[in-house]
Amino acid sequence: MQMKQRFLAEMFGTFWLVLGGCGSAVLAAKFPETGIGFAGVSLAFGLTVLTMAYALGHISGAHLNPAVSVGLAVAGRLPIRDLGPYVVAQVVGGILGAFVLSVIANGAPGFDAAAGGFATNGYGAYSPGHYSLLACLACEVVMTFFFVIVILGATDGRAISGFAPLAIGLCLTLIHLISIPVTNTSVNPARSTGPAVIVGGAALSQLWLFWVAPLIGACIAGFLYPRIFPETNVAVAPGPLAIDAP
Amino acid sequence: MQMKQRFLAEMFGTFWLVLGGCGSAVLAAKFPETGIGFAGVSLAFGLTVLTMAYALGHISGAHLNPAVSVGLAVAGRLPIRDLGPYVVAQVVGGILGAFVLSVIANGAPGFDAAAGGFATNGYGAYSPGHYSLLACLACEVVMTFFFVIVILGATDGRAISGFAPLAIGLCLTLIHLISIPVTNTSVNPARSTGPAVIVGGAALSQLWLFWVAPLIGACIAGFLYPRIFPETNVAVAPGPLAIDAP
Amino acid sequence: MQMKQRFLAEMFGTFWLVLGGCGSAVLAAKFPETGIGFAGVSLAFGLTVLTMAYALGHISGAHLNPAVSVGLAVAGRLPIRDLGPYVVAQVVGGILGAFVLSVIANGAPGFDAAAGGFATNGYGAYSPGHYSLLACLACEVVMTFFFVIVILGATDGRAISGFAPLAIGLCLTLIHLISIPVTNTSVNPARSTGPAVIVGGAALSQLWLFWVAPLIGACIAGFLYPRIFPETNVAVAPGPLAIDAP
Amino acid sequence: MQMKQRFLAEMFGTFWLVLGGCGSAVLAAKFPETGIGFAGVSLAFGLTVLTMAYALGHISGAHLNPAVSVGLAVAGRLPIRDLGPYVVAQVVGGILGAFVLSVIANGAPGFDAAAGGFATNGYGAYSPGHYSLLACLACEVVMTFFFVIVILGATDGRAISGFAPLAIGLCLTLIHLISIPVTNTSVNPARSTGPAVIVGGAALSQLWLFWVAPLIGACIAGFLYPRIFPETNVAVAPGPLAIDAP
Repeated sequence: MQMKQRFLAEMFGTFWLVLGGCGSAVLAAKFPETGIGFAGVSLAFGLTVLTMAYALGHISGAHLNPAVSVGLAVAGRLPIRDLGPYVVAQVVGGILGAFVLSVIANGAPGFDAAAGGFATNGYGAYSPGHYSLLACLACEVVMTFFFVIVILGATDGRAISGFAPLAIGLCLTLIHLISIPVTNTSVNPARSTGPAVIVGGAALSQLWLFWVAPLIGACIAGFLYPRIFPETNVAVAPGPLAIDAP
Repeated sequence: MQMKQRFLAEMFGTFWLVLGGCGSAVLAAKFPETGIGFAGVSLAFGLTVLTMAYALGHISGAHLNPAVSVGLAVAGRLPIRDLGPYVVAQVVGGILGAFVLSVIANGAPGFDAAAGGFATNGYGAYSPGHYSLLACLACEVVMTFFFVIVILGATDGRAISGFAPLAIGLCLTLIHLISIPVTNTSVNPARSTGPAVIVGGAALSQLWLFWVAPLIGACIAGFLYPRIFPETNVAVAPGPLAIDAP
Repeated sequence: MQMKQRFLAEMFGTFWLVLGGCGSAVLAAKFPETGIGFAGVSLAFGLTVLTMAYALGHISGAHLNPAVSVGLAVAGRLPIRDLGPYVVAQVVGGILGAFVLSVIANGAPGFDAAAGGFATNGYGAYSPGHYSLLACLACEVVMTFFFVIVILGATDGRAISGFAPLAIGLCLTLIHLISIPVTNTSVNPARSTGPAVIVGGAALSQLWLFWVAPLIGACIAGFLYPRIFPETNVAVAPGPLAIDAP
Repeated sequence: MQMKQRFLAEMFGTFWLVLGGCGSAVLAAKFPETGIGFAGVSLAFGLTVLTMAYALGHISGAHLNPAVSVGLAVAGRLPIRDLGPYVVAQVVGGILGAFVLSVIANGAPGFDAAAGGFATNGYGAYSPGHYSLLACLACEVVMTFFFVIVILGATDGRAISGFAPLAIGLCLTLIHLISIPVTNTSVNPARSTGPAVIVGGAALSQLWLFWVAPLIGACIAGFLYPRIFPETNVAVAPGPLAIDAP
């Protein structure tokens, strides 16, 4: 598969992740009486990945997340030279998705993204439950660690074929069911960057944590998985989400 | 497969989509204390497509949606001459489903469909969150665009076989999780037409938007997908939801 | 497969359907603040069928429902002579499941099943939303009709293999998302009989409707499906839920 | 597969089960206005098992639960000599998961695990709905019984291949949808031990029930399944979650 196609697939996919996941939070989570709440937002984030992994996984692997691409590279599943284009596509897609969401959201009377309703990630005073920086750091590291473990395991050549997009998408739902109150859930620097660029302010000044913590968790997972479970590790996995070998 | 069978499959399927999706909204969304809310309605809409795609997908492809049929035709996946019967079957099914729903709903004391409780789509004053016409137009175009991208990708001959109905059904759930507050979510002209015909009034006078916007989004997706990802495009997809070639 | 094993599989499965589906309604639906509501009950009913269809579908087909067995017999998928044992097993399992549920439910302070909290089905004054007899009849007929259509379609020899339990289980979830407010949702005479036998009173005197209406819907579906879609009808389906031929 | 790898897989997996399942309950269930409630917690518990079964099932079978391992051993699916390491790994993982959860939870202002908000299991005064010891015992026995029946059936060599992790994970979701109000739902001694060790007090003094009851239910299921459905029982199942033969 050509890099141009893979670039576009990662960009479209991350656009959808931010538009859909953050969109459900911004537009529908707190709708009076019938709002979808954190459970609905959790489902929405997971379904953006599930749908794109089944629709475009055969093009790019549907990472949609710089931490995932880095974790796969550390584990030897993605050629290092592909990291740059993948991360750029994901960040561009995330920003575009957040921009389109802002256009739709501003169509409602009285909407004010800067007032804190734009699905940005944050810690301390900007954590939904006012969790400390340390708790937010620990939470993002451990959530991303398990997310990448699930991705590496479910796309392992010995895993059951075909179900990886389901398992990975629902893993993201699970992670949101746990951690929205802590950081509003990132585990994905591109997802955090999109809304932060639109809103600015604290969302932008706290953005560093949502690059650092997910990347730490992803690197640990990418380092440990092939060493703990060596028999099942191959340089380029033959699983359904595998990236074409160079 | 004969067109008569495909016609009946599309009619039954769209009947179920409107009866089930709109039915969950009309009958159960706002039930006191234990109502299912927008999240439950989102799940219901997605499950109508998921169930029909597994049950009747081998007959007609289970489009259940004029925008989907048009998008597939633009992408070269559906013969143009099949468009007419498909769209007629979908609209007839949608109206019949809305009619049967009205029979059930009118069995409750004090039910009044004209008072705004019949799951119709609308913009401005008739948008659940009072979103502007422009926001509603943008939302329906972009949601339908991604819906048709997911359909084209998940039924691509190189995608994982068998999971397309799951991915497509849950994509419709995702779209509802995002956009019910904006337009009550259409992305499907037949779904909008059914309740509008029963209720009349503003639902009918605003119906044009829910034909125009989904068709725009679907045409863009049907045009772009085979051009962006050409290696994976085939005239008639061998995927599980493929339509028989002429 | 011997009938003794199939009998036990149907009995265990229907036990689980009533214990799990009605149990979620009785124990968890209205728990203060964090109760699961109608959406959670809908998910629970569907998951009883999904889990049993994957666990015991290879033994008995996992009908767990007299209307389903009758519909399959009308469609030529189940030998007529198997109908008797299947229905008896389902009714016995449903009553046992309701009995065990009553033992657990009575362990809570102040529980009173006769006061209307035991997940019984009803119409008119005993419908959750006070729907008329006619609306309840129409709703149960049409819901069971589509349930059996989905079962016949998803287990058709030409449908995608392996996903029938998923589609069928989630179809039952969908049916509950729509119709709990109308009849508390039956579409299954054995599910209705279990709680009615435990509670007595109106639940028992109204029980006839939840035998008559589901059987009507199932017979229409079983009659129409092989006639509308004849090419895909075989005497005994080779699908994953197929019953062994005599 | 070496026991060291299987030990680590069971430890990681049970860590994730407790961190994710109990984490969703502790952090997100009662969040004001948008909390996920018992339905969200139920989904989270099930998804911990679903994700780990697809990610690490090919390593260890992903039992993540001493009752499951004992039930499989009784059914002849797990060599007896593997029981010890499996149970130790599960208990260690459960305690570590609860510890990491306590670190995150303590990052919120005013959090107090000892005050009853740490997802511990209990009966009588410590049951969420104040259910009696007898009701709690019956509930845990019967829920674990059906859980192990579903595991044994879905991984039976004649069941549909590949869907066992889905069916088993969603079975755990179903069990929580029913029984959180009764015991806060255990069916898993390792899941109960983790939070109890962190919190102490009544959680620890009542812990015995959540070893005894699940083990009773699992042993009955492991004993009955191969005797009721003998044709489908093999010493070591070839299903997707099978453990390597010695």
